[in-house]
Amino acid sequence: MNDMIDGKRLVESLHRLADFGRWETGVHRPCFSEVDIQSRQWLMEKMREAGLEPEIDGIGNVIGRSKGPGPKILLGSHTDTQPRGGWLDGAMGVMYGIEVAKARGGQGVDVASWADEEAHYKAFLGSRSFVGELTEAEIDEARHREDGTPLRDALKKGGLSERQRALIDPSRYKGYIEAHIEQGGLLEKAGLHIGVVTAIVGIFQYLVTFEGQQNHAGTTPMALRKDAGVAMRRFCAAVDAAFEKVVGPRSVWTMGKMQVFPGAPAIVPGRAEMVLQFRDEKQAVMEAMEAEVMRIVESGIAAPCSMKIETLARTLPTVMDPALVDAVEAAAKARAPGQWMRMPSAAGHDAQIIAHKLPAAMLFVPSIGGISHHHTEHTEEADIILGARVLADAVDSLLET
Amino acid sequence: MNDMIDGKRLVESLHRLADFGRWETGVHRPCFSEVDIQSRQWLMEKMREAGLEPEIDGIGNVIGRSKGPGPKILLGSHTDTQPRGGWLDGAMGVMYGIEVAKARGGQGVDVASWADEEAHYKAFLGSRSFVGELTEAEIDEARHREDGTPLRDALKKGGLSERQRALIDPSRYKGYIEAHIEQGGLLEKAGLHIGVVTAIVGIFQYLVTFEGQQNHAGTTPMALRKDAGVAMRRFCAAVDAAFEKVVGPRSVWTMGKMQVFPGAPAIVPGRAEMVLQFRDEKQAVMEAMEAEVMRIVESGIAAPCSMKIETLARTLPTVMDPALVDAVEAAAKARAPGQWMRMPSAAGHDAQIIAHKLPAAMLFVPSIGGISHHHTEHTEEADIILGARVLADAVDSLLET
Repeated sequence: MNDMIDGKRLVESLHRLADFGRWETGVHRPCFSEVDIQSRQWLMEKMREAGLEPEIDGIGNVIGRSKGPGPKILLGSHTDTQPRGGWLDGAMGVMYGIEVAKARGGQGVDVASWADEEAHYKAFLGSRSFVGELTEAEIDEARHREDGTPLRDALKKGGLSERQRALIDPSRYKGYIEAHIEQGGLLEKAGLHIGVVTAIVGIFQYLVTFEGQQNHAGTTPMALRKDAGVAMRRFCAAVDAAFEKVVGPRSVWTMGKMQVFPGAPAIVPGRAEMVLQFRDEKQAVMEAMEAEVMRIVESGIAAPCSMKIETLARTLPTVMDPALVDAVEAAAKARAPGQWMRMPSAAGHDAQIIAHKLPAAMLFVPSIGGISHHHTEHTEEADIILGARVLADAVDSLLET
Repeated sequence: MNDMIDGKRLVESLHRLADFGRWETGVHRPCFSEVDIQSRQWLMEKMREAGLEPEIDGIGNVIGRSKGPGPKILLGSHTDTQPRGGWLDGAMGVMYGIEVAKARGGQGVDVASWADEEAHYKAFLGSRSFVGELTEAEIDEARHREDGTPLRDALKKGGLSERQRALIDPSRYKGYIEAHIEQGGLLEKAGLHIGVVTAIVGIFQYLVTFEGQQNHAGTTPMALRKDAGVAMRRFCAAVDAAFEKVVGPRSVWTMGKMQVFPGAPAIVPGRAEMVLQFRDEKQAVMEAMEAEVMRIVESGIAAPCSMKIETLARTLPTVMDPALVDAVEAAAKARAPGQWMRMPSAAGHDAQIIAHKLPAAMLFVPSIGGISHHHTEHTEEADIILGARVLADAVDSLLET
């Protein structure tokens, strides 16, 4: 076990990072905002203190590289936040990396903070750049999701536009480990303290639209109606019923957007629109769910209305590397016997991108009340420190073998 | 039969009225707009030509009174329109009245155009004033539904604010008959030309809201969710199933407004909102439907979410006067044998207000394609003329008895 982790120092550094954009009990630090750029400069200092050679690259990634020979483990996460978000989401995984590097005298680990994980401009911008998947054309086109600022302008303002983008050298690494808050309430509910992540769920998302005929709600008899809202309700009910038969124990599905048009009490809706999203850790389950959706669409359930389905996202689940998962599990078992479990990540993380090039794994600590993306997001200090110790132990064991 | 109806003259007068606010193939003449006030002046001229004594009252009603002794029949409808609406909706019933007055030498019929039937300021403003149900306080409070103009300002601008409001003298009348386009497609579908209206449907309308817990759509397991959208879908399905058992053959129900909040694909809806409206010609059917809704609300169907229902409208059906209905039917039978049917009105009309004080009846002519509240609203010229003849015959027979 690695006894060089300094829990007090770690927690203090997290509080210091939260000063950049502190907002009520949380943090408002969207990627490429002024405080975000300042925090990246501060991160580089912290990396230097930990014995790493830091750089900020042309897309905003901060990467601290260790000196010396031999294979490395890459540790990291992101330090940008959702608007008025939490202080640990992302930040914790990066500060863990720096603490582990410090504990190891700057040897054997590289640490990264990936730019714009929270998708203010483009989801997984930094990690996608690092693995070589982000094109210049995508950078040209990307705009801030709220105010429309071009990404190029934000990079320029942040002093990044003249820099190179860092590219992964897979031969340098044994793997990537990302620590993160759970964001859900499963660990808390189970009374456990460490989650050993086995997979990151896939996300399939569809825009479903129904076209009927807008009509007078008094004078149009039920039998003559083409009510797009009725068609939508019938579709939703069929999806709910079909999913019950094919889903796994941790599948989730959500109809988070749903509306009828023109949306007046005395008008039979001529159009209806909804978004269906589902997530699971197993590709086979997701494909079975998708097959059910398509079967329902083709069954003519919308008749006498017509319907259309459009795929908005189709991210497959990412299975974590078995050897890395075993190493994290062994460390959890030793540090926190009986207080850990294997579990999938129900949210997306940079690890699913880095996994395209490296063996990857994740570990979770509990979120109090399962809350995230909100300023009240929090994790017990003891859990924050425990997570760092488990990570350090896992790194040690992987670098020894 | 009354052979003094001049079909050509009637249709020409309708086209002339449509010049006030003509818009594409329809008319844009909201109550108290400049063209609406102009059209009311023109109406008074037409009434005078028909031998009536016209006045415009303090709420905008135009009323033409016949001279001479004996009981009268009151004929009328409205000449204001929906925004970019049709040329016949309302206007036809008023011009029928003037044509019948002319055909009878200005004897035995009074004719009215009731202000603001289309509810730009307040539904049934003019007819409610005439039967003594509109208070000064309501006039003080009423505002234009879109631009918020106070009704008092509109009345002043229209030169009406110094005038008295006309009040009904029930002893003057044998009854009220309103002719109108059907607005639905039942007559057309049945290949018939006259609808003898037996009742005006009631309208019950409710705002239904569901409160759950807004949450992350990835990390919140299905079993722990309080999804307000799921609660709403369950409620809708239960209403559909329950209504099938208690509705009448012409009941209609509509969920014309429906939305989940915050309305993001990856957020479990914390709130949902919808409007349920239903209509029927029978009070007992409406009460049975309402009882089903309340039973479903109380069944706890929204659990683990909570729900709330608020009554927005509760207008009971209005049964037309049997003797007047018989007179209209006899006239239809004689003029158009085998081409008429008894039917309810699925939309609201001033007749339901005047019925509070007088025996009332209505007759319908077909709407091509069932279209109304749209500039493409239309009725065959032959049907327009037939309707006027049936009305004149019914008036004759009622005044003879």
